[in-house]
Amino acid sequence: MAGTDHKKPSKIQEDGPAIILIVPQLGENIGKAVRAMYNFGLTDLRLVAPRDGWPNEAAVAPAAGADIVLDKARVFDTTAEAIADLEYVYATTARPRDMIKEVVTPKRCCELMRGFVNTGKKVGLLFGPEKAGLKNDDIALSTAIVSVPLNPSFASINLAQAVGLLSYEWFQTGSDIPDSFTPTQDTSPATAGELQKLFDHMEEELKEAGYFRADQRRSLMRRNLRNIFTRSELTREEISTMRGVIKALATGGGAGWIAEKAEIALKAKKKAE
Amino acid sequence: MAGTDHKKPSKIQEDGPAIILIVPQLGENIGKAVRAMYNFGLTDLRLVAPRDGWPNEAAVAPAAGADIVLDKARVFDTTAEAIADLEYVYATTARPRDMIKEVVTPKRCCELMRGFVNTGKKVGLLFGPEKAGLKNDDIALSTAIVSVPLNPSFASINLAQAVGLLSYEWFQTGSDIPDSFTPTQDTSPATAGELQKLFDHMEEELKEAGYFRADQRRSLMRRNLRNIFTRSELTREEISTMRGVIKALATGGGAGWIAEKAEIALKAKKKAE
Repeated sequence: MAGTDHKKPSKIQEDGPAIILIVPQLGENIGKAVRAMYNFGLTDLRLVAPRDGWPNEAAVAPAAGADIVLDKARVFDTTAEAIADLEYVYATTARPRDMIKEVVTPKRCCELMRGFVNTGKKVGLLFGPEKAGLKNDDIALSTAIVSVPLNPSFASINLAQAVGLLSYEWFQTGSDIPDSFTPTQDTSPATAGELQKLFDHMEEELKEAGYFRADQRRSLMRRNLRNIFTRSELTREEISTMRGVIKALATGGGAGWIAEKAEIALKAKKKAE
Repeated sequence: MAGTDHKKPSKIQEDGPAIILIVPQLGENIGKAVRAMYNFGLTDLRLVAPRDGWPNEAAVAPAAGADIVLDKARVFDTTAEAIADLEYVYATTARPRDMIKEVVTPKRCCELMRGFVNTGKKVGLLFGPEKAGLKNDDIALSTAIVSVPLNPSFASINLAQAVGLLSYEWFQTGSDIPDSFTPTQDTSPATAGELQKLFDHMEEELKEAGYFRADQRRSLMRRNLRNIFTRSELTREEISTMRGVIKALATGGGAGWIAEKAEIALKAKKKAE
């Protein structure tokens, strides 16, 4: 999906969770994680002993322009050093561990983190190396485990995907976007009166065309037709469009067209007589 | 994160949404999308005019073993053909369109789709090409728009990430995983009586060590200590561990160690006399 608008203010969330990648292997994966972080406004990347060192040219292209995150990234020798300033740390794991530690969903994790951040605390998320995942010693340093619900027979999730999911859930907890809305752009929703005129027009033409054959079905058919168009939540402009469509159908073809032809034929016949 | 357990039953959701990629460019991206789909149990992949044809060798390695999805993938010439059997189709877009069409969040979209699937309907999700996103003509074929809330100044989300997010939200709507739980493995939570014995042991040793100096602070300090350990929700085994720790601290060093040394010195002195 493409849709960056550089004129819009950036929703950078300085206090968002630090993303801590432990011994990441491929620069490409770091770059993709960076892109996903910044898609959701996160900028605090911390790398613990990245295999190929840092900076890493291979991370630049996959980051797709999220240079602010690449430039700010910090490197640490150990997990303990990387998290030293954080009050709450969540360890991402896919497989269960033999550990007595609270396990939360990504959604719950982000709700908790948002609560902590709102009271001035610093939080972070630990991600293990691509293949092996986090070591138990890293998990033991964490407040709790966050586990993405996955297909148990195919639970090997890509590192950047995991970073993206958590970043997405974090962004959601601070988002005021409604679950559902219908943009009306520069148009105005039609009034009930305008809609009524559409119904009158349509029903008049349908009556002319002999659509309402059986009287006992007429009220049912009218109701069905009205439901179709009330459900569409038409704008004023769309009412005009629909009225044009009805007019065209009624006069340009079908019964109207036949009637017109018949009238012409009749006139021609009268003239000839 | 690594964690596939092939012994676990696969949560394949035959009725889950079809993932429809319109004119996808890179085989690698198709493969990564396939991996993300199958992470969340989705298997119905439909490709509309993939640029490099199909099958595509470049998709195999990034799919990371989700062969069931690759093998079942179907190719169509047009979007209309790809969605012909579906009752509800949601178009993913990041940027707003000049269209009067309902816009829903991924979460809401998946709740709606789950409801439709539960009543026997077929549903699908449209994704546009990597750079350009969906064309308005494809969106016009859709029931509604689903838009991922994103950083507005960096809204270019990777195709596989977008597929992953929607697949994740779909899986969530069918997941019975609790928001939070603490596995106790093969251990047993301690009873209040066992915990009380720990408190008695600890407080007795602390009293001996002169920890409760001021009588007026004693009850406060006891309460604080008790809160630390009740909050930890200790198991029976951890109670044993803690009692061992207290014993070691009390006798192996500090006051206990000094007392022991003093006793030895006293005995030696008595012997010498």
